[in-house]
Amino acid sequence: MKINYEKTVKSVEAFDIRFPTSLSGDGSDAIHSDPDYSVCYVIIRTNDDLKGHGMTFTLGKGTNIVLNAVENLKFLVENQSLNEIYKNFGLFWRKLTSESQLRWLGPEKGVMHLAVAAIVNALWDLWGKLEGKPVWKLLTDMEPEFVVTLLDFRYCTDVLTKDEAIQLLKKGSEGKTQRVEELLETGYRAYTTATGWLGYSDEKMIELCQKYMKKGFDAFKIKIGQDLKRDIERCKLMRNQIGYDRTFMLDSNQIFDVDQAIDWVIKLKDFKPLWIEEPTSPDDILGHAKIADALRPFNIGVASGEMIANRVVFKQFFQANAFEFCQVDSARIGGVNEILLVYLMAKKFNKKVCPHAGGVGLSEMVQHLQFWDYTSVSGSKEGRYIEFVDQQHDQFVNPAIVQNACYIANLSSGYNTELKAECVEKFQYPMGSEWQKLLKTNLYANSSM
Amino acid sequence: MKINYEKTVKSVEAFDIRFPTSLSGDGSDAIHSDPDYSVCYVIIRTNDDLKGHGMTFTLGKGTNIVLNAVENLKFLVENQSLNEIYKNFGLFWRKLTSESQLRWLGPEKGVMHLAVAAIVNALWDLWGKLEGKPVWKLLTDMEPEFVVTLLDFRYCTDVLTKDEAIQLLKKGSEGKTQRVEELLETGYRAYTTATGWLGYSDEKMIELCQKYMKKGFDAFKIKIGQDLKRDIERCKLMRNQIGYDRTFMLDSNQIFDVDQAIDWVIKLKDFKPLWIEEPTSPDDILGHAKIADALRPFNIGVASGEMIANRVVFKQFFQANAFEFCQVDSARIGGVNEILLVYLMAKKFNKKVCPHAGGVGLSEMVQHLQFWDYTSVSGSKEGRYIEFVDQQHDQFVNPAIVQNACYIANLSSGYNTELKAECVEKFQYPMGSEWQKLLKTNLYANSSM
Repeated sequence: MKINYEKTVKSVEAFDIRFPTSLSGDGSDAIHSDPDYSVCYVIIRTNDDLKGHGMTFTLGKGTNIVLNAVENLKFLVENQSLNEIYKNFGLFWRKLTSESQLRWLGPEKGVMHLAVAAIVNALWDLWGKLEGKPVWKLLTDMEPEFVVTLLDFRYCTDVLTKDEAIQLLKKGSEGKTQRVEELLETGYRAYTTATGWLGYSDEKMIELCQKYMKKGFDAFKIKIGQDLKRDIERCKLMRNQIGYDRTFMLDSNQIFDVDQAIDWVIKLKDFKPLWIEEPTSPDDILGHAKIADALRPFNIGVASGEMIANRVVFKQFFQANAFEFCQVDSARIGGVNEILLVYLMAKKFNKKVCPHAGGVGLSEMVQHLQFWDYTSVSGSKEGRYIEFVDQQHDQFVNPAIVQNACYIANLSSGYNTELKAECVEKFQYPMGSEWQKLLKTNLYANSSM
Repeated sequence: MKINYEKTVKSVEAFDIRFPTSLSGDGSDAIHSDPDYSVCYVIIRTNDDLKGHGMTFTLGKGTNIVLNAVENLKFLVENQSLNEIYKNFGLFWRKLTSESQLRWLGPEKGVMHLAVAAIVNALWDLWGKLEGKPVWKLLTDMEPEFVVTLLDFRYCTDVLTKDEAIQLLKKGSEGKTQRVEELLETGYRAYTTATGWLGYSDEKMIELCQKYMKKGFDAFKIKIGQDLKRDIERCKLMRNQIGYDRTFMLDSNQIFDVDQAIDWVIKLKDFKPLWIEEPTSPDDILGHAKIADALRPFNIGVASGEMIANRVVFKQFFQANAFEFCQVDSARIGGVNEILLVYLMAKKFNKKVCPHAGGVGLSEMVQHLQFWDYTSVSGSKEGRYIEFVDQQHDQFVNPAIVQNACYIANLSSGYNTELKAECVEKFQYPMGSEWQKLLKTNLYANSSM
């Protein structure tokens, strides 16, 4: 790919955008009882006023900490030439994650890595716009030898070398043109998480199951883990609604210890879940491996990824056969570059990626990654889904579009990450107009930040 | 133990304290080329004006991010009664690490966990003062059944249950009184890192080796990993100085990939290092296990811990036999409470703890933990050391004291974490008097934050 952009980065700005979702119980699970779905939203401007938009998803409080991290990182981005960035993006990525003093605060995890993700995602949106392509097509059109220049193989070469990655990409490219056409025609299958949040009543669950079945969905996820008796009731209710021909997944959001996860999920085996998601700590590779071994005889797969900290931890999940479904998140690890490496490792270890998208902007971003996986890496949609939750999409200028339970692929440029101007005006925290109203009510009387 | 403190927490304050160590090359290694040794310093005040001091070590830039995280967490601490905190400290600790919205930003790792550590360490300093004891003695005097109330066993019960922990502590208590006396008499052996920073010249290394041998040190660590030829020269120089009767350790600060680490360290085997510290990413449990297996035939142990994110990752290092030397840090994981659990797991898996102390305030804190390990857990000093670097100790009101290469145990109250008032006045960033001078010079002209 030819890189020739005579531009520089003029500014990196970050915004604290919060939606008061805790008021409705949307997004509630066994660990996160009252999230306010939020983003640290980053706008990168070039000297000629092109803009790239990026974000990282958060749950309300502490979004300002991620903003602060972006402020600390931006000296590495401002005034850089776009040629320097995109000609060796893997190296630039390493600069962001390995700055000698800031690295101590991670390394490559938590707040610092969320901030890196927001910046890197903005650079990808900008790149898509520079090339007049959506990110998925930009990636699809790259030569394998160029794709590997985007990656930092540090700490992964014992499992995947640059040369092996090129070979995987070459093999993955066979038949690419046809798959691009097919994708533009038929899109990519979604599953829904919207029917089973832990805070929902039976009535609401039934209503939502009916609604999503009418929309054509054939895979439904339910939150579990606070009360086994209630979980059994909820699973029964859900299976009664959707029947046994549709797919059903469980998500316990890290509530269990290892042995407890095994016991609990086996008690739900008759509901034939495809997977148990996040049975325990996302840092516990060996724990997940033990759970996966114990559940394999029941055909229940382990799924995890939305809080797996970085490519090094993913690498070990693959090595230890600790999950069947890799749920990489578009803004937890360091943005597109690091995620591409996770997809390549998934291909090598023959695991399915079903990316995490329960959060603001995540659908918008992960669709690109999963489309690229289909056109250029795994070459298959078999057994794979993209998560879908119908929340906050209307805040985006160019939101992800799901029709007939499929994400629609199109050719508009960028990464679909631009928020509407009025969204920023309303939901910027705490000065946005909606927050100014809410903070005067009792609803947020006990809120600390 | 009886808890009866009719007090509440009045305030939690955080300070950004930075020392301009990058100007001298102190603290430089293969990954951190120019650290400014720093702390996020926390002062907790009670309603009757007692104070607890805590800190987390940082490398300069981004210390303000940790401060911001403390600001976000402090609503969980302010106005709490001390009885509520100390009667079930394990539960209170979980509140700090598991707040429903903030948890997303970790969980239990990176910036958020560094902030939790600073707060928790301040609560321990305060507790020591309330009881008129040093933290090591406070811990030593607790009944096993009380110690376990300090711990959060979440995600660790597959390896260590509360009951097993009580049994380990009961066994560890046998002969405790004698060991307390012995410790007060003879102290605890230190090793030095001060002789081998990567930025040092041969002359400086020779001078420092002589100096520390004269002080009685018999164990010396050297930084490696930038250039193999130069590493061989430096190891030779160090061994020439200290001979082969003294102990010699290598530290590569995560510079290597897994296979590269094995190759590189085997080339240094003739210098008979006791350990190779941080051969690769601190997140790579399976990688460390592979390295440990490969180096075992050469009697070179693997050491790691200063950047291991939390007890869940430590748990797996133990399970996978991925290191011989556990170098837990007093402010990387969530403060004293979480560290105690790591010590107990080390005991169970028969691994030696040699805590990390290369940083501001770390010597001051880890001495307490290692003293407790000796009096109440492992009951042994065999093959164990506490790291020592002679930096910034003079900034403390009551610094760690090392004489004849031994940390001296005493009975003054608290956690030794109070900085002198003039230190705060001089080194608070950026308004402290030293920084106001430095920022006007060229030395920090390119500094961004």
